Amino acid sequence: MIKKTVALALSVSLVTTSASAQQEPPQPPADPSQVAWDIVSDLTTEIGPRLAGSPREAAARDWAVERLTRLGFTNVRIEPFTLDGWVRGEETARLTAPYPQTLAITALGTSASTGAKGISGELVYFPTLAALRAAPASAVRGKIAFIDHAMRASQDGSGYGPFGDARRSGPAVAAEKGAIATVIRSAGTDNHRNPHTGATNFTAPGKAVPAGAVSNPDADLIAKIAAKALPMHLALKLTGHPVGKLSSGNVVADLPGRDPTLAPILVACHLDSWDLATGAIDDGAGCAIVAAAALAAQNGGAPLRTIRVLWAGSEEPGGVGGDAYAAAHKGQPHALVMESDTGADKVWRVSFDLTEANGPLADRIVEALAPFGIVRGTSKANGGTDVEPIAKAARSGVIGLNQDMTRYFDIHHSPDDTLDKVDRDGLAQNVAVWTTVLRIVANEPGSIAGM
Amino acid sequence: MIKKTVALALSVSLVTTSASAQQEPPQPPADPSQVAWDIVSDLTTEIGPRLAGSPREAAARDWAVERLTRLGFTNVRIEPFTLDGWVRGEETARLTAPYPQTLAITALGTSASTGAKGISGELVYFPTLAALRAAPASAVRGKIAFIDHAMRASQDGSGYGPFGDARRSGPAVAAEKGAIATVIRSAGTDNHRNPHTGATNFTAPGKAVPAGAVSNPDADLIAKIAAKALPMHLALKLTGHPVGKLSSGNVVADLPGRDPTLAPILVACHLDSWDLATGAIDDGAGCAIVAAAALAAQNGGAPLRTIRVLWAGSEEPGGVGGDAYAAAHKGQPHALVMESDTGADKVWRVSFDLTEANGPLADRIVEALAPFGIVRGTSKANGGTDVEPIAKAARSGVIGLNQDMTRYFDIHHSPDDTLDKVDRDGLAQNVAVWTTVLRIVANEPGSIAGM
Repeated sequence: MIKKTVALALSVSLVTTSASAQQEPPQPPADPSQVAWDIVSDLTTEIGPRLAGSPREAAARDWAVERLTRLGFTNVRIEPFTLDGWVRGEETARLTAPYPQTLAITALGTSASTGAKGISGELVYFPTLAALRAAPASAVRGKIAFIDHAMRASQDGSGYGPFGDARRSGPAVAAEKGAIATVIRSAGTDNHRNPHTGATNFTAPGKAVPAGAVSNPDADLIAKIAAKALPMHLALKLTGHPVGKLSSGNVVADLPGRDPTLAPILVACHLDSWDLATGAIDDGAGCAIVAAAALAAQNGGAPLRTIRVLWAGSEEPGGVGGDAYAAAHKGQPHALVMESDTGADKVWRVSFDLTEANGPLADRIVEALAPFGIVRGTSKANGGTDVEPIAKAARSGVIGLNQDMTRYFDIHHSPDDTLDKVDRDGLAQNVAVWTTVLRIVANEPGSIAGM
Repeated sequence: MIKKTVALALSVSLVTTSASAQQEPPQPPADPSQVAWDIVSDLTTEIGPRLAGSPREAAARDWAVERLTRLGFTNVRIEPFTLDGWVRGEETARLTAPYPQTLAITALGTSASTGAKGISGELVYFPTLAALRAAPASAVRGKIAFIDHAMRASQDGSGYGPFGDARRSGPAVAAEKGAIATVIRSAGTDNHRNPHTGATNFTAPGKAVPAGAVSNPDADLIAKIAAKALPMHLALKLTGHPVGKLSSGNVVADLPGRDPTLAPILVACHLDSWDLATGAIDDGAGCAIVAAAALAAQNGGAPLRTIRVLWAGSEEPGGVGGDAYAAAHKGQPHALVMESDTGADKVWRVSFDLTEANGPLADRIVEALAPFGIVRGTSKANGGTDVEPIAKAARSGVIGLNQDMTRYFDIHHSPDDTLDKVDRDGLAQNVAVWTTVLRIVANEPGSIAGM
């Protein structure tokens, strides 16, 4: 009964002729920001961490089907796929020389296991990934490489590209030179004893070696000792390891438009999270924002175009869900794609990948977002991991609603990604901004496409 | 050689007739804030965590003797004592119902062990310690008590008294009612996944039960589930446990005054730290401040009174070092005591426990601190754990240089207490303020005493 009432409350202005709606007085639509808050609050509380391919990710899919159905979405379904799995194990690191110090460490996704007994070896310090690349193999062979970097917080999050390469590529570079393991400074901008995990890419599964990240204060300690030119030794245990194929899936749900001949608008987030925290900003908030805004765009009547919500699975290991969506929907037109996957802080900029013919549409959006103080970016929108494959295949337009990422990499992929990090004012602004844009694009009768 | 040169640099204005000083040109005194930084930086880097009674606390004492001697202190010695020891073990907590969630937990000092297999039981939520006190034993017996509280950050740190009682007294209250274990919300004001440890007091060693603290985000999760009135079950493993008597000690060092008939000034901090971090703000910074300021007060010539530095051992288990100092120095006059044990943020207030006859002395200090914007507090200074026993025994005067504690309980007793948390500007201000006060009090020829 509760389900039905809530669904009606949300769709009442849409389905005014239904029998139920005539029997009871119409209720006002649910507050969209409350809808969003409830999604991220309940997902993090009731499901919690949901590693790609894990039983908890499966539980999250079931939870998502129930929630999206209750909210009034139609055709809510799971589209299954498989991925190369990875499971976490024990993780400890202890500097044994020149000073005994315990380090806060976590394994990177795809890391090989050290075995239960762990390994130990000399820890060789490289201030940058470039320094490691430039080093001869003899400097690393048989040793543990430490890769430092200097990532700083920025509003556009642009530090994650170059400095995040220490994580994405560093362990493979060290392995190629014969390192027995790699430890990096976390790709994070906070100063807490919480290491940030994330996927690393070995050149082949058989070439994986143990790879972990220490927290920034621990990396500071290592850098301080390295500056004294004192030899360092590390005892390292990381028993996380790859496991064959695991099951995952995308959750897809529609809000049908009035004109089924028009290509839909796809709005996406990802449902999986890293396993160190409950995945509030990465990406529970994104799922909350896109679903709440899609619903709010129905208030006052269904728009012309169908809005489809994609809560993708297994984004964190490398966009597996986005690839699976593109494969499953090959050849199907998608007018426009949008993704929310950078937290819940306020949107400050809008960027586009639209044809020249869609210039007036972009101008209308910029004008509609001006009351929010949102500026127009000069770079082409790239969509995001979950929507890029279908956007490329379907030549969809892309709109990027860029969130303030100043705080994002303090929290991202760390044990700190919990509900308290979601700023409710920021979340409400996101829903309002997304709703504004969706009302415009979903009511655009003309062709929408990317460059 | 390095030792001698540094010591000379610091004491050159004091010992201008020494042969060495005549052979080489006098060097300017070391920058006192650099002296302080080097102490906290090197102590945290080279020694790291130094739990009361542990081998690392012993290593810290040796390090301290070497450093204080090198800096020019005289009669540098270790005054040994023993304490009831406690060692940390494994610590995990997992909510098994109504939702599977892993909690970030740490054991409280004096906690009993759950045993290696852990325990599990219903987790019963109490919003406050008062609610637990008011509850019938039947509400807790055979269960695990959860004690919540609402400690908030404040400049004077006053929340730690009342809300910290959840930690200090809560586990004993629950144990008296038959709880099999207690978990509390950390007595901390941050929102990171880092639980705060600290000592808890059972009514007798035999009455100890397992007791731990979860991080604030984990406590938020528990509170959210409790608000739904859903039964909670917890699987808890805390294998830390008391171990008989362990060896500890105080490090004591003097800077002799010109008039040995005058009672000395005692400035104190504590050298031990909790074991989750390197003890930068609690209390490496305090040791750095008192030692650097004591040295700087010699610049321009030794003052009338001896300044004695006490780097106390085993403060964290309950002021064991302070008690041992008072016992070892029973009957010895101490004119005035001061302690630095609340981080490295700036001094904002000065408070006193001085006789009425010392009113003009207090007024001169207030006047001298006015350029720092420091206000005069209206409450009587209480000194601090390391100096209270001797102050009480010797009827010493007390001056409290109250630091801004707004950030202090974000970090205190948590894995986050690392060097990066020390604000160098704040540290330098502390050294300057302490030096100002020490120059006044150490040159006071008249009697100094407490009320």
